[in-house]
Amino acid sequence: MLRPIGPVIVFGASNFPLAFSVGGGDTASALATGNPVVVKAHERHPGTSELVAEAIRRAVVASGLPAGVFSLLHGPGHIVGRTLVQHPLTRAVGFTGSRTAGRALFDAAAARPEPIPVFAEMSSLNPVFILPGALRERGATIAAGLTNSVTLGVGQFCTKPGLVFGAENADFASFRGAFAEKLKAVAPATMLHSGICASYRKLLSRAEALSAAKPLARANPGDPTKTQGEAVALEIDVPSYIKHPEVAEEIFGPFAWIVTARDFAELEAAAEHLEGQLTATVHGTPDDLRQAAALLRILERKAGRVLINGFPTGVEVSPAMNHGGPYPATTDVRFTSVGTAALLRFVRPVCYQDFPSELLPEPLRNANPRGLWRTIDGKLSQAAIPAGS
Amino acid sequence: MLRPIGPVIVFGASNFPLAFSVGGGDTASALATGNPVVVKAHERHPGTSELVAEAIRRAVVASGLPAGVFSLLHGPGHIVGRTLVQHPLTRAVGFTGSRTAGRALFDAAAARPEPIPVFAEMSSLNPVFILPGALRERGATIAAGLTNSVTLGVGQFCTKPGLVFGAENADFASFRGAFAEKLKAVAPATMLHSGICASYRKLLSRAEALSAAKPLARANPGDPTKTQGEAVALEIDVPSYIKHPEVAEEIFGPFAWIVTARDFAELEAAAEHLEGQLTATVHGTPDDLRQAAALLRILERKAGRVLINGFPTGVEVSPAMNHGGPYPATTDVRFTSVGTAALLRFVRPVCYQDFPSELLPEPLRNANPRGLWRTIDGKLSQAAIPAGS
Repeated sequence: MLRPIGPVIVFGASNFPLAFSVGGGDTASALATGNPVVVKAHERHPGTSELVAEAIRRAVVASGLPAGVFSLLHGPGHIVGRTLVQHPLTRAVGFTGSRTAGRALFDAAAARPEPIPVFAEMSSLNPVFILPGALRERGATIAAGLTNSVTLGVGQFCTKPGLVFGAENADFASFRGAFAEKLKAVAPATMLHSGICASYRKLLSRAEALSAAKPLARANPGDPTKTQGEAVALEIDVPSYIKHPEVAEEIFGPFAWIVTARDFAELEAAAEHLEGQLTATVHGTPDDLRQAAALLRILERKAGRVLINGFPTGVEVSPAMNHGGPYPATTDVRFTSVGTAALLRFVRPVCYQDFPSELLPEPLRNANPRGLWRTIDGKLSQAAIPAGS
Repeated sequence: MLRPIGPVIVFGASNFPLAFSVGGGDTASALATGNPVVVKAHERHPGTSELVAEAIRRAVVASGLPAGVFSLLHGPGHIVGRTLVQHPLTRAVGFTGSRTAGRALFDAAAARPEPIPVFAEMSSLNPVFILPGALRERGATIAAGLTNSVTLGVGQFCTKPGLVFGAENADFASFRGAFAEKLKAVAPATMLHSGICASYRKLLSRAEALSAAKPLARANPGDPTKTQGEAVALEIDVPSYIKHPEVAEEIFGPFAWIVTARDFAELEAAAEHLEGQLTATVHGTPDDLRQAAALLRILERKAGRVLINGFPTGVEVSPAMNHGGPYPATTDVRFTSVGTAALLRFVRPVCYQDFPSELLPEPLRNANPRGLWRTIDGKLSQAAIPAGS
């Protein structure tokens, strides 16, 4: 049976002050599986964090749980966060944020006398490959959908597409034109906080300074006093994308690279060059997809979720969801942070051998009054075990 | 769906040249889940390793698999093994052996640019708690069973009980006497290799040199030219066990500490002091067990498998088995090396969103010709999905 792993530290995210923070997925998964939770509030969201924590504290009292089952701490991550990760009673860590901070937590946890798992979600460019038939049949529709996906929430989704690949021809040129027109029309909007906005501008400037980068589209800049970020797209070719590691780094905000390949083989080379991603997307007709078997196999190795003819920004909370992926998308490719399987982050198996039924955890007792699915003599079953058997 | 994690490195074990080595559990789990395997042969078992590898190579050819799906390498662990763990294409590592070597592999894997999971099984003392009612009712029977468990395979099982706890009274004294008599009668036997035997003698000498340790039993020593190990037991009290960390270190061979508590509270303190274990065992009558609820809760946190009125040396390969445990029993408390769940070591989830059925992996396609259990709209089902739905 899967049992609680022990006290869990959750780091509030900068970009998701609700769903990936104090009362977000990791806290829900850890509490649901029977673990106490200590949340380190993100320094940019102290008020939101307190409001959510207060609601959880009231729920803890109302449910008759021990008060220690949930705590919220404020303070600098490199002091408060690190101390929590190194505490001998801590058993697991959930984090969503930058690659630098996530890796530092992972390293601190791995260096403990007793190493513990760190589920850090760090960065993803969510590549989108648009194949020739799809470009020919519905390039303008894809351009419109892509614009929405790149600029949704001012580009502050971890699943925002930041790399868009196509093989050069007249249809891909038309697509770029349509995408540029759509993107230019996006109104500027306020980003989550000034830190994200400043980082967006800094990384944009670095990208624009690359001699291989060509401007494709820039929306009207917003009001600098309102920490607004405008939508931007740059063009580059595959050899330059492979040569410049900066192009493979996440730019958090409403930005995308459009990467042009000479041919299909160069698209596959571009896919093989990808680091680990949360998602990878292919747009194609049935004919396109039949010819893209090798590309799909590469993308399955690179990403935790592979989409066909969709956009990655929507993340459904469901049993089939995987929100995770190979490093550096996350530090543990074996687990998801969204969907019912997220519960598996904070459990460990325990085998109870020859226990009298009454000493077993309730779900393992013979009677099975809740009709849980259990494996009995190798077969899945919701049945009770008859007395005396 | 769970998919292969990628190339797996398996380290052959010193103590299990078959079940935990070239063709052992990790190799079987990795191959069964679709991963290529590279085995690093244990230096003490080069011939056995080659014989097993040759059988696997023939099976690879007979099955029409690519030759690269399985390889065996020989050489020093700190050179060949480390190089394999650091190779950029390596995706997971399985190891059974010493705490020092296991931790070194874990650290090397965690320090990689892309960290990878290491499943190292390192050490376990498999504590056994014998409660007063059980001592009174069947102390001699438990002594006989314990002797078998301590000396099975010359004490070279990772599940050998090395720490036996009881609260002092006349029944526990009788038990110790019976256990000593049984142990003294055990014939010496040849250990797996001279390295294990030399290490056994060295750790025995260190244990015997502790001033708090009292000799309890020593069987006839064997023939030193045959690398034989004789059964030995020492006595110590709980405060001394807590004071001397050496007592909590595994002595690989037919040896056990008998640890005497003043009372039940001291038994619980001894349990709380335990490091992570593969197994923990309690012998008790129904009355004993009702009073041992707190002890059982402590042991569940300390061990991957908890047994009542049995001995831990038998490890059944079954869906219910968990052969794993908190550090330092293993480096990853979330996974087992034995039983059907061992397959989970070498897989990662992938979500296929909006794939046409024919592009999905076969188990996810609508028709489900093999009647696999799948989750459809939140419900477990072996049914096919009707066309057009």
